[in-house]
Amino acid sequence: MRNIDEHNITEAAIARLGHGAQPRVNEIVTALVKHLHAFVREVKLTEAEWQQGIVFLTDTGHMCSGERQEFILLSDVLGVSMLTVALNQKRAAGATEATVFGPFHVDDAPRCEDGADIARGAPGEPLAGEIEVVDLEGRPIADAEVDIWQADDDGLYDVQRPELGTERRARGVFRTDAKGRVRFRSIVPTAYPIPTDGPVGRLLDAAGASPWRPAHVHFRIRAQGYATLVTHLFREPDPYLDSDAVFGVRSSLIARFEPQPGGGYRLQHRFVLVPESEA
Amino acid sequence: MRNIDEHNITEAAIARLGHGAQPRVNEIVTALVKHLHAFVREVKLTEAEWQQGIVFLTDTGHMCSGERQEFILLSDVLGVSMLTVALNQKRAAGATEATVFGPFHVDDAPRCEDGADIARGAPGEPLAGEIEVVDLEGRPIADAEVDIWQADDDGLYDVQRPELGTERRARGVFRTDAKGRVRFRSIVPTAYPIPTDGPVGRLLDAAGASPWRPAHVHFRIRAQGYATLVTHLFREPDPYLDSDAVFGVRSSLIARFEPQPGGGYRLQHRFVLVPESEA
Repeated sequence: MRNIDEHNITEAAIARLGHGAQPRVNEIVTALVKHLHAFVREVKLTEAEWQQGIVFLTDTGHMCSGERQEFILLSDVLGVSMLTVALNQKRAAGATEATVFGPFHVDDAPRCEDGADIARGAPGEPLAGEIEVVDLEGRPIADAEVDIWQADDDGLYDVQRPELGTERRARGVFRTDAKGRVRFRSIVPTAYPIPTDGPVGRLLDAAGASPWRPAHVHFRIRAQGYATLVTHLFREPDPYLDSDAVFGVRSSLIARFEPQPGGGYRLQHRFVLVPESEA
Repeated sequence: MRNIDEHNITEAAIARLGHGAQPRVNEIVTALVKHLHAFVREVKLTEAEWQQGIVFLTDTGHMCSGERQEFILLSDVLGVSMLTVALNQKRAAGATEATVFGPFHVDDAPRCEDGADIARGAPGEPLAGEIEVVDLEGRPIADAEVDIWQADDDGLYDVQRPELGTERRARGVFRTDAKGRVRFRSIVPTAYPIPTDGPVGRLLDAAGASPWRPAHVHFRIRAQGYATLVTHLFREPDPYLDSDAVFGVRSSLIARFEPQPGGGYRLQHRFVLVPESEA
């Protein structure tokens, strides 16, 4: 084909790219070409806009580091992350719902003993967390890994504070006891704008969209034989529960942060995992 | 909306993102969300595949530098670049056709005097180029900028040879004389595989697609009052003219590389620009 034009190029690209050794790759690449081309045709993308797109993607890549994932942020604000989560979590009734992973998880969070304070000096009102990890029948799941991370009272994660270097605050990894429980101390999360100092911030600004997320604590719970659960607990009241910049709120994930007589708050929650085989 | 699910998230994302101050941005973002979501739904993207996608885009961004543009390469192999070019070049009959820009242009190519040898030691058979830049009526366009770049006999651009550092070979920028002409000396281009040492190479490999491009010389011609022309001249015969990895071949861009009695080749071509107002 030496005269590919706007009419036959999609067919030509699919014929070229959709025939590798892995059927699933072929399926994904074929659909990607089809939908990308449909996008370019629908908006009749100009060459200057294409150039801007290349610069945008390049800037987004250059913003990514071990502590900042701008492509996840992009996927989040476009609703792609939550759509993917929603498509994959047709779980049994009673199971805890999943939500977006977000861009601020790190792999080297401190390993903590039960009851540890993960705040480590992060500013905020004290929070006492008591969580329980159970199966669909309510039986405790022992030795589950519970990875917790959150923003502080200024709405910042530790990785957003260059002055901390690699010091980790307001995040930690626990293991459940024989009763499926983890107790931790931390701080009360606050609502915050997602970082707007990069390409995604420029996109939200151009698109007239708010960067705010309602206050939440992230959890990733992994246990042998169970589907990994990536979710948040949101705090009510919060002005952004109905306008989360990343579409992550589920009613079932709004948890009680109870003010305590002596000051601070208590958060109790039971997470219900489904067997790996049913996920 | 605090219970966004797989069914209503596209509507929610468009409602959130499609209302900025610039109508064209709204149009593009709305279409992007719609088509991206349609892709995710059609293939029922898994969370592991989404993660692989994030890693792929991040790696692609990290591969981009001033001398390597992996996102352009990605756009090229997916047919997005050529589709964009084709959609935008509904030009008057007789005008030279455009093709893809490619990932190997640099902004700091040497400025050359008429007749200069741009090869500067790049390996290859000698080539004498004689080009002419004219308008639709065949009148010469003087003082047009003619930016030329190409691969060498090993199929490599200068920027693909780390040993050269910032030394520039087989590229140069000329200006047409009063008769719209530029003469240059260079080397004969050869067919080459696009770089396969990055994420795009991994994609082509997984998709079972060939990385080869037919031999060509790149041209970008800019002149006051005319639409910028980005194009190639291809050499015949070449085994890849019908299977260019980036879908860039147009019959009208296949040029004559005439063997010369004393050795080497001669390339003559007339480029026809359209007024800016008609582009």
